[in-house]
Amino acid sequence: MIKADLIIRNGYILDFEKNGDEFLKQDIVINSGKIVFIGKATSYVASKEIDANEKIVMPGFVDTHTHIGMSYFKGIADDLPLMDWLQNHIWPLESNFLNPEFVYDASLFGCAELIKNGITHFNDMYFFEDQTAKAAKKIGIRATLGEGILDHNADKSIQITRDLYYQYKDDNLIDISVAPHAIYTCNRGNLIKARDLAIELGLKIHIHLNESEFEVKESMRNFGKKPVEYLDEFDFFQVPTISAHSLWLDENEQKIFSKKNVTASINASSNYKLANGINSFKNYLKNGVNLSFGTDSVASNNNLSMLSEINIFSKVQKALIHDSTFLPAKEVLKMATVNGANVLDNHFNSAKLEIGNNADIITVDVDNIQSQPLYNMFSQLVYSIESEQIKDVIIDGKTIMINRKLVNVDESELLKKAKYWREKITFYQK
Amino acid sequence: MIKADLIIRNGYILDFEKNGDEFLKQDIVINSGKIVFIGKATSYVASKEIDANEKIVMPGFVDTHTHIGMSYFKGIADDLPLMDWLQNHIWPLESNFLNPEFVYDASLFGCAELIKNGITHFNDMYFFEDQTAKAAKKIGIRATLGEGILDHNADKSIQITRDLYYQYKDDNLIDISVAPHAIYTCNRGNLIKARDLAIELGLKIHIHLNESEFEVKESMRNFGKKPVEYLDEFDFFQVPTISAHSLWLDENEQKIFSKKNVTASINASSNYKLANGINSFKNYLKNGVNLSFGTDSVASNNNLSMLSEINIFSKVQKALIHDSTFLPAKEVLKMATVNGANVLDNHFNSAKLEIGNNADIITVDVDNIQSQPLYNMFSQLVYSIESEQIKDVIIDGKTIMINRKLVNVDESELLKKAKYWREKITFYQK
Repeated sequence: MIKADLIIRNGYILDFEKNGDEFLKQDIVINSGKIVFIGKATSYVASKEIDANEKIVMPGFVDTHTHIGMSYFKGIADDLPLMDWLQNHIWPLESNFLNPEFVYDASLFGCAELIKNGITHFNDMYFFEDQTAKAAKKIGIRATLGEGILDHNADKSIQITRDLYYQYKDDNLIDISVAPHAIYTCNRGNLIKARDLAIELGLKIHIHLNESEFEVKESMRNFGKKPVEYLDEFDFFQVPTISAHSLWLDENEQKIFSKKNVTASINASSNYKLANGINSFKNYLKNGVNLSFGTDSVASNNNLSMLSEINIFSKVQKALIHDSTFLPAKEVLKMATVNGANVLDNHFNSAKLEIGNNADIITVDVDNIQSQPLYNMFSQLVYSIESEQIKDVIIDGKTIMINRKLVNVDESELLKKAKYWREKITFYQK
Repeated sequence: MIKADLIIRNGYILDFEKNGDEFLKQDIVINSGKIVFIGKATSYVASKEIDANEKIVMPGFVDTHTHIGMSYFKGIADDLPLMDWLQNHIWPLESNFLNPEFVYDASLFGCAELIKNGITHFNDMYFFEDQTAKAAKKIGIRATLGEGILDHNADKSIQITRDLYYQYKDDNLIDISVAPHAIYTCNRGNLIKARDLAIELGLKIHIHLNESEFEVKESMRNFGKKPVEYLDEFDFFQVPTISAHSLWLDENEQKIFSKKNVTASINASSNYKLANGINSFKNYLKNGVNLSFGTDSVASNNNLSMLSEINIFSKVQKALIHDSTFLPAKEVLKMATVNGANVLDNHFNSAKLEIGNNADIITVDVDNIQSQPLYNMFSQLVYSIESEQIKDVIIDGKTIMINRKLVNVDESELLKKAKYWREKITFYQK
């Protein structure tokens, strides 16, 4: 018998090369954080096993745009105009509360919510990312972390990015990115500094881009060009880049994304709720843009549910172009999993669970009222299932959630801390 | 001490006349199916108690458009054009499977899913509604049931409606409605028969109306009028009416709805997913139309989650008119609860939980990662919470679900039956 760390037994393994309507029970064997075998694991023995009977076994969701340090601002100011929301609520709260302790606590809490939603890797941009790194390590989630670079903090944030890179360059869970906030908060000089740092250290870039029509208009006014064209003019896209929101790209900008390896992170809930726009992405696909999903923060979304994102987005996309056949469930699920993993994760290089890949895996219970009768796995995952059905989360081969209970943190402690900060925040607001 | 049937203790009672940010712990006392006291129940004693500590206590969701007998067709044919879906999948399945046994089993299963989603009253239109009535009684859910009237079955369905009315006229859970399917499946004569039956028996009408642009065009071509104007021409709206979908109403049709007491059942998921349209309802509100939500069936939606409906709809509505302040969370929650109850439920006559109302109540746990920190109850319910947090369901004063476990049915039996029918359906499809 071959020894391994973990065997996930008897699950329906989601395979993007099939139709989703074959229900074969198979095992996945994991060793040293990697998938080593898929099939009937008769010749393996492991110290840990997960019973995946009547569960779908699939790649974890990859959340390509978050601000996890904002997790205590969940639903704190809703149904407001964007500028009122930012200037009178979010910014004052941030300037009063942001410190290492707050960001650590909020990040740990946010990571817990990510895992409850089956997200195994998140791509974050915020401040005090050293604290978010500590929280991610504590809970055991894979993270790509970028310290937000804006004109007022550029040199400091670039130094922090560099320090974080050296601190985590051999870490198996944490990757560092370079995160210039946006073209309207970073001048050309700082964008170039960010670009050069990414090239020097071999890092990815994470930026907000084309979130609102206002941003596009300002870009035309200030630079005489659309946002993506403006960046391309000084050859900004030299490393793989994640562009958050990416709502208002014209044809040429979409072609630049495709050519320059820029992945769009679609943040549907946030964009709709803040009324930034509701556009079709059909042309993006035609132009070959790699599409993925981000939840954005709980201050704007207001949850970290990838299932909710794909459910909303896929239905709306069909409606917008009057075509119910557009964007079938399988395609949407790929966007929510492997499309992000292929960009962010250096050890996930395919369209599905495969031998050699990082073992970032979730199980989804289908033996319940909401998921039966089950005819097609892709369809159920996109249109029917909610987070309640996500039972087990394995990241880097380690069990991080078992039957909806987090392994590495005490949930009642997390709740106590959240309520402590809520009191402080509520008091401050009065 | 005053004796009562049930006390729900220490919950945060949702009050649409407040802002949602006051967290007072109160009790609700229930006797003979009605709310008899709200406050601190120090002078009441009951044989049953529900601990609602750290839970929101609120009116149950009212689902104003369902086809619950279709519950075994969940996700059976997705991402297809409407006519392909109907003609090559749904209709053949219906003609092969619809019989009393199938509809009873499917209805019981569907009712279970409704309750898991906090829905305490559903407004159904399908066939073999006598079986759906039996299933609703068995599980303990409130239902308004209409046997579908189409030209090919009109006289038979009208007789069934009459029979059902006499069978259930003194029932505390079941109401019967008159359910002409649509203007394109019922000719004027049958629509008039349906109208007259509703007037004679004092029943409500349930009809599909303005679901697709095609329907509107056909109405113009056949009758020279918009669908609602065509019906109004022969004074169809003499009893309170629920109009399913109601997507394409023009200004004048909206005014007719408002004047003639027609409630629109918005079926956002179904309409988006089948690409029937994605319109703003701002004018409907301006014109005074009573708006409510329906899940439609799991064959088109594909779940029975009211939380999912309100989450999707509210965000999309903001985006469509570029106004993040439109349709605040409180308004959406009213639409999903009391707006439907006020029309369908003869013993629910207000904008909130009140003494004298039918005790159709749900509890929503807020002591968990997804719901904390909690700043505003309305906001959390619309934007953050998922069905997992819905813990207890009380209908007509009876406990129907306790801590997510159904009281009156064996869930494992329901799952066994669903899988039995799934095998038959899958075999038939091959």
